[in-house]
Amino acid sequence: MATDSDASMATTGLRRGPRRTKGDATRETVLRAAVDLASRNGLAGLTIGDLAKAAGMSKGGIQGCFGSKLRLQRATAESAGNVMEREIYAPTLAVAPGLKRLMALCENFMSCSARTDFSAGRFFDKAAAEAGSKPGTLRDLIRNLYGAIGHRVADCAREAQTLGELDASADPQQLAFELTALMGEAARHFRLDDDATHFIRARFAIVRSLRPLLTAKSPTLPDIRPPKRRERVAAAILR
Amino acid sequence: MATDSDASMATTGLRRGPRRTKGDATRETVLRAAVDLASRNGLAGLTIGDLAKAAGMSKGGIQGCFGSKLRLQRATAESAGNVMEREIYAPTLAVAPGLKRLMALCENFMSCSARTDFSAGRFFDKAAAEAGSKPGTLRDLIRNLYGAIGHRVADCAREAQTLGELDASADPQQLAFELTALMGEAARHFRLDDDATHFIRARFAIVRSLRPLLTAKSPTLPDIRPPKRRERVAAAILR
Repeated sequence: MATDSDASMATTGLRRGPRRTKGDATRETVLRAAVDLASRNGLAGLTIGDLAKAAGMSKGGIQGCFGSKLRLQRATAESAGNVMEREIYAPTLAVAPGLKRLMALCENFMSCSARTDFSAGRFFDKAAAEAGSKPGTLRDLIRNLYGAIGHRVADCAREAQTLGELDASADPQQLAFELTALMGEAARHFRLDDDATHFIRARFAIVRSLRPLLTAKSPTLPDIRPPKRRERVAAAILR
Repeated sequence: MATDSDASMATTGLRRGPRRTKGDATRETVLRAAVDLASRNGLAGLTIGDLAKAAGMSKGGIQGCFGSKLRLQRATAESAGNVMEREIYAPTLAVAPGLKRLMALCENFMSCSARTDFSAGRFFDKAAAEAGSKPGTLRDLIRNLYGAIGHRVADCAREAQTLGELDASADPQQLAFELTALMGEAARHFRLDDDATHFIRARFAIVRSLRPLLTAKSPTLPDIRPPKRRERVAAAILR
């Protein structure tokens, strides 16, 4: 699994052992503050001055850590990607591979998105909206990181297919597109109106998409009903 | 149908006849530039100085037109909403109501989203990412405008149901959530990689969602196949 220190490796190109130095810890603290700031002000709005204030460091200290603004932006995006891996994907490794892991991945994505302190999710929405249609290395990076959750969904679907828990006719890439579309839309609506009903809508649609693809070997999927009109649900339902 | 001059009415509270004054035309030009700027820099990044430059006016002229930055932001969001109505919804009124109109609405949304000059679509993605989790009147406005396309989809679905072209068991609100999720996700991916394949994925999933809800009265839906792995499609396919 990727960690925050992998992010610094990717940026500096240095290979490090598992021992964390004081510099790694500082870098991690700064990057956590950077993801948080960028999730509110965007990557373009991430200034070294604001970040120094948020992380309680000098501007020179931040500059020494990252050099240019572009390197800071890249490291921030990679760090947000690592949070997604750690919080959404890594816990699914404790679940049996196949359809159960696929469902766990979706549930983790949605329960993280329903947390007001989960800035990594907001970060990618904002970064994708920012980077869109502006070709460049930052857009390429955001595209890969934004697409990562879809790749994880596709991997889980392929695994389920290999295990015979998902019909051979299922198209993992198409499924990944649909499932991430539903979860992402729920998260966006939720951020605009604090109503977790959208997640129930996504859950319902996900289960309904999977049902015709089940086999005799598939585990039982939960029986979800779509929310009633005007029903409102608290985010706690997802935890 | 709402027009740009409705937007100025909504903001100034004045009732105007259909005759356009020189002031209306100026306001429209400024708002067009404002939607374009905000689709790139966000609503928070929309400054009176940048807008004056983009519209070829003085800062005083812009200030005289809108007063505060908040009023300019609101007018800009309303103007983007009007563009969505005019370009995506209005043309569907020429199509027979029911399932055909519902499909036309989806096709219009996707073909507009595939146009690089369609800044209103990018505007809402950016504004939703900006406004999310920041309670306030601007968030309320963005929420309503971001949700407008979903309401149009639900209206079309309800109409199709009344006409007997969609099964009575269909849930128009759930359908609207799913269809806008698919179209929005395709647009976001397209902006990050210029590959229109995502729209084909959305189209395929939309038709597949509708198919079990068809009745004897339903018009025939197109037969869409999901794209092959690694297939790339030019945006022109949607026009």
